[in-house]
Amino acid sequence: MARMTIDGRRARGETSRRAIMNRAVHIASVDGLGGLSIGGLATEASMSKGGIVALFGTKEQLQLATIAAAADIFRESVVLPGLAVEGGLTRLRALTDAWLAYSENRVFAGGCFFAAANAEFGSRQGPVRDAIAASMTEWQEFLHGTIERAVARGELPAHTDAGQLTFEITSVLDGANSTSLLFGSSEPYARARVAIEKLLAQSS
Amino acid sequence: MARMTIDGRRARGETSRRAIMNRAVHIASVDGLGGLSIGGLATEASMSKGGIVALFGTKEQLQLATIAAAADIFRESVVLPGLAVEGGLTRLRALTDAWLAYSENRVFAGGCFFAAANAEFGSRQGPVRDAIAASMTEWQEFLHGTIERAVARGELPAHTDAGQLTFEITSVLDGANSTSLLFGSSEPYARARVAIEKLLAQSS
Repeated sequence: MARMTIDGRRARGETSRRAIMNRAVHIASVDGLGGLSIGGLATEASMSKGGIVALFGTKEQLQLATIAAAADIFRESVVLPGLAVEGGLTRLRALTDAWLAYSENRVFAGGCFFAAANAEFGSRQGPVRDAIAASMTEWQEFLHGTIERAVARGELPAHTDAGQLTFEITSVLDGANSTSLLFGSSEPYARARVAIEKLLAQSS
Repeated sequence: MARMTIDGRRARGETSRRAIMNRAVHIASVDGLGGLSIGGLATEASMSKGGIVALFGTKEQLQLATIAAAADIFRESVVLPGLAVEGGLTRLRALTDAWLAYSENRVFAGGCFFAAANAEFGSRQGPVRDAIAASMTEWQEFLHGTIERAVARGELPAHTDAGQLTFEITSVLDGANSTSLLFGSSEPYARARVAIEKLLAQSS
């Protein structure tokens, strides 16, 4: 009975934690990771500041937990739909389509979470910046590996420069995200689709 | 005599204002426009908070003055070297070269000022966001006009989609800036030069 109560408390703690994290990622995608505050989240969740600190620790730990939660959402929205596709070039197209949908559908209210976080922390130092860099490196390496997979399967030519193509594709994706946010327009997504088709056509 | 004293005060005010603005643009390029504070600038300039308020007004007015000062630095670093070149395609190349040098040489400590400011304010509302959008629109329209100039001079083919090419070039420039900041590497600038050469070669 005591055990069940403890488990029940743990489960409730986990549910609160998830609900608060869900708010935190959306606040951070609009106001930046610097815009997250223990006080602000406490007010939104009708909890004491002490309750938020018990769940997340310091503000830096809260920022790191938020980045981890955002990375989970990114994997679900972009990486998993790509992994569901068997081929190399077809997987690459599935990934870029999923990425553009993830940005255009505003899975995060402020567009791509990592683009915003990178612009905010990219020129600073410390564990928050390192966590953002690790997530972005993971994504770029996955894209790079998918291009190599397409080359290995003969779907892209053997002389393809995977690093160069990764740079060009991520630039186009990020460009669509930032231009769309700036001008409140969906046209950049159409331009990005044209640009990526050209990149893949000239590669193949 | 009274007149001279007033002019002298005005000149000193202008000198202080410029020196403080110079610090403000560099602070904002690393810590964001949200990182600017009247108190912080007062401490750095050994002035009273009241002195800073007298020179700049509210925090929002300080942010707007900082954006205007950054736009002047951008024009000097990128637009003027482009305007110094007569041709269309040669001017376009001069502009992209100057942009990459502006980012790579860290004219602003945190890389491109407007990329950082856009990521910070792009998904908010208000005069600060509007001022950033106006500066970025001005740049994109200048690039667009330069592409049309190259088309009009027969240096790019008549069927060139200037809007598409503007999107692709700005994506590559911004991609070099953000990737270089993230990985502390200059390789993205080399990749950007290759990507832009490909874009112009396939257009012409």
